[in-house]
Amino acid sequence: MGEPKQERAVKTREAILHAAAQIFDECGYSGASISKIMARANVTQGGMYFHFKSKKGLAQAVLAHQQDFVHFSTESAGLQKLIDLSFGLAYELQSNVLFRASVRLAVEQGEFGLRDDTAYQEWVNEFYGLLCEARGRGELLPEVDEREFANVLVGAYSGTQIFSNVSSGRADLPERLVSMWRYFLPGVATPQARARFRLPTNVQRLAA
Amino acid sequence: MGEPKQERAVKTREAILHAAAQIFDECGYSGASISKIMARANVTQGGMYFHFKSKKGLAQAVLAHQQDFVHFSTESAGLQKLIDLSFGLAYELQSNVLFRASVRLAVEQGEFGLRDDTAYQEWVNEFYGLLCEARGRGELLPEVDEREFANVLVGAYSGTQIFSNVSSGRADLPERLVSMWRYFLPGVATPQARARFRLPTNVQRLAA
Repeated sequence: MGEPKQERAVKTREAILHAAAQIFDECGYSGASISKIMARANVTQGGMYFHFKSKKGLAQAVLAHQQDFVHFSTESAGLQKLIDLSFGLAYELQSNVLFRASVRLAVEQGEFGLRDDTAYQEWVNEFYGLLCEARGRGELLPEVDEREFANVLVGAYSGTQIFSNVSSGRADLPERLVSMWRYFLPGVATPQARARFRLPTNVQRLAA
Repeated sequence: MGEPKQERAVKTREAILHAAAQIFDECGYSGASISKIMARANVTQGGMYFHFKSKKGLAQAVLAHQQDFVHFSTESAGLQKLIDLSFGLAYELQSNVLFRASVRLAVEQGEFGLRDDTAYQEWVNEFYGLLCEARGRGELLPEVDEREFANVLVGAYSGTQIFSNVSSGRADLPERLVSMWRYFLPGVATPQARARFRLPTNVQRLAA
């Protein structure tokens, strides 16, 4: 007996998304094509069109699932967890093709006529939650507005990873993040909390 | 008597660059074509090929002249000048198609197979110069490394304008810059200097 039909469909969809991410990561949006993605996923035209009708639809699906592609766990809490997450995402950008493709499409979305900040707003919400946790733990300066700083951090992080990508293929991203935090923490965290935070020391350059 | 040949060539080159910037700004790299740019610049094929042989060459020329496209003057100095420049660039991104196209190409350069951080490094150097001036004026905290913070600021600025672009077509960029500076200044400027700086208050939302 074969797999149930639904289970097979879910697997096919996942295979297509993964192949699409690989192709978008390698070729960008304009260099990608449905036929390249079909070949990579090893699916038939029928299988493809059951799930996705267009390259743009595929790009939107890869873009929309940005947070699902990242699995991050840590023992830390509050601001330390936010710091750890920022370094965790740097590692994901290096090693996780689905996440990397999704970020690339978010940055280059102008190339396929999209202007959609959902992926950015999801990170604002994620960071905001951790900042509220930090507030509850007494780690934030009174003048910090949690939502405002969450927005600032998403912008600053996005540009830092883009600059690192064109400079070094993201090999220097952890170093750049250490620098970014050095200049943000005095405006965000209480001196007592700052004395406790761990930024990675001797940051390893990741393989480019 | 007509214009000297050389003068005409310079004018043609400028007309082509301007038309290319308009088309890249409107259509992105993959949507642009040499023929669209020729039509917009009102030049012949001969005129085009005398100056530029390919769409990629044109994109690289628009990308390479990013700083030439911006004319910024201010009475201020040191850190206040850096702050003023950051808001001046926001205005340029709104109103100056050559600069806006150049920035777009820098961000989306993956789409034409480039990985060139020259435009970013030029801003690092520009910001670094102003930070050295600020150091000479006693405005910086002792722990600030001028080159490190120049790098941090270029990354943070780039991402802030990208996020603002997808969120609001850059209408909210000045507000986002006020927020960014609110969280950077405590880690960068002495309390005495901070008391003097002017961030725009009642920031106007620019027309989207």
